[in-house]
Amino acid sequence: MNELVFVGLGLNDEKGISIKGLDETKTADHVFIEPYTSLMPDFNLQRFEAICGKKAHVVSRRELEEENGAFILEAAKKSKAVFLVPGDPFIATTHVTLRIEAEKQGVKTRIIHGASIISAIISLSGLHNYKFGKTVTVPFPENFSETPYNVVAQNKKVGLHTLCLLDLKATEKQFLSINQAIAMLLELEQKNKKSIITPATVAVGIARAGSDCPTLKADFVKNLVDYDFGEPPYSLIFPGDLHFMESESLIAFAGATLEFRRLVK
Amino acid sequence: MNELVFVGLGLNDEKGISIKGLDETKTADHVFIEPYTSLMPDFNLQRFEAICGKKAHVVSRRELEEENGAFILEAAKKSKAVFLVPGDPFIATTHVTLRIEAEKQGVKTRIIHGASIISAIISLSGLHNYKFGKTVTVPFPENFSETPYNVVAQNKKVGLHTLCLLDLKATEKQFLSINQAIAMLLELEQKNKKSIITPATVAVGIARAGSDCPTLKADFVKNLVDYDFGEPPYSLIFPGDLHFMESESLIAFAGATLEFRRLVK
Repeated sequence: MNELVFVGLGLNDEKGISIKGLDETKTADHVFIEPYTSLMPDFNLQRFEAICGKKAHVVSRRELEEENGAFILEAAKKSKAVFLVPGDPFIATTHVTLRIEAEKQGVKTRIIHGASIISAIISLSGLHNYKFGKTVTVPFPENFSETPYNVVAQNKKVGLHTLCLLDLKATEKQFLSINQAIAMLLELEQKNKKSIITPATVAVGIARAGSDCPTLKADFVKNLVDYDFGEPPYSLIFPGDLHFMESESLIAFAGATLEFRRLVK
Repeated sequence: MNELVFVGLGLNDEKGISIKGLDETKTADHVFIEPYTSLMPDFNLQRFEAICGKKAHVVSRRELEEENGAFILEAAKKSKAVFLVPGDPFIATTHVTLRIEAEKQGVKTRIIHGASIISAIISLSGLHNYKFGKTVTVPFPENFSETPYNVVAQNKKVGLHTLCLLDLKATEKQFLSINQAIAMLLELEQKNKKSIITPATVAVGIARAGSDCPTLKADFVKNLVDYDFGEPPYSLIFPGDLHFMESESLIAFAGATLEFRRLVK
């Protein structure tokens, strides 16, 4: 059948994919994979190819962005093409353009979902999903922006948590660290003086969500600014109002001190 | 090894689980499963047991909530216990209590993530993940609440989208329909008169996210109120400000009319 199936690889390594996603890959005529919208720290292409019994064409950023994945669409017009993407296929907006173009050209598309880094981080923290406001990405210093500070401020104002994804260039192995992100936000605090992110603010740093050895640490910003989180990828949560069960979760799962019980609103 | 591993079953059926989750289940001494925090429409326990080669103990709501899963903890103190949960394990807050209790009693816990209904819905819609505000559940009429209306209002005020999960009792096969949810919200509009959810408001209804045949329909509320979405589960998005690419996505993936291009801000 002529179609383009977007399959989520899930998290961390070649075993993050669902059984359904693996079945779709096994029956594909052409398999494409892109490794740069997110980091899967322990993913090995040779092991993955052994599991699915197919050779995968690694798509470069240039092929996808400048050529709009034209060769993927050509393959999908004549046969079953599977496009493998880290996490859940469209949580990164990069691939939406390809899917729109496919549908415009009459190529049927389907999605096989995978575990997403966003639900993994929320799940690991034990914080309540429905209490998160807008998510934001903290950029590298060269793309400095006040947006992350403003989003945390906007969410806190109504008691909501903020999930901050920290920018990365997966193929270049560049990762904004939790320490750097906090330092940048403290600088913005110096400038704006709204008491949004001060040394006494509570935050949760998360490294390697979805791997076998995630690191979580909930503490005051003053203690997190030089905490060693180990290997990437990284993210950061600024909690809004904490429910009793949420502070218990941070104590049990993220090494928070018992002092966190006093923060419950 | 004595431990309690929470494994996400992912979406829809027994093939939604990751390969890693399946491997953990195959090597477990005790397998527990709960089928009521979310609906997996095509999940079949016998087929799942055949795939993993283990018998699974179906946990009742009473065993989990009233007895705090004491027998799961007992099993995990002496052996490797796997607890299978629809979607991603802690997106529903129901299981956080069990995990806290396990850690308090010295039982090590781990999480193997699965695809979550929340990232699946966002992924399917093509709307940008970072433009969603707080998520809300629309309850059954007997638990009537103004919260969903207020959350949509709060998000819209700052241009953000709202994901509304529609309440369900999976084991009783009761589902709040998209039509019912919209009717309830229109009633609240009548009462509050803030022009948040009127017949001319844009919304996106989604049925069976994560299945082989999801239905998406983006339209004005007046047209969605009696649209036939087929089988459950259901959810509903009230978009805030639409980016050009988002309106193109709704046209390509959710049957929106070209009129949606005029809604771009």
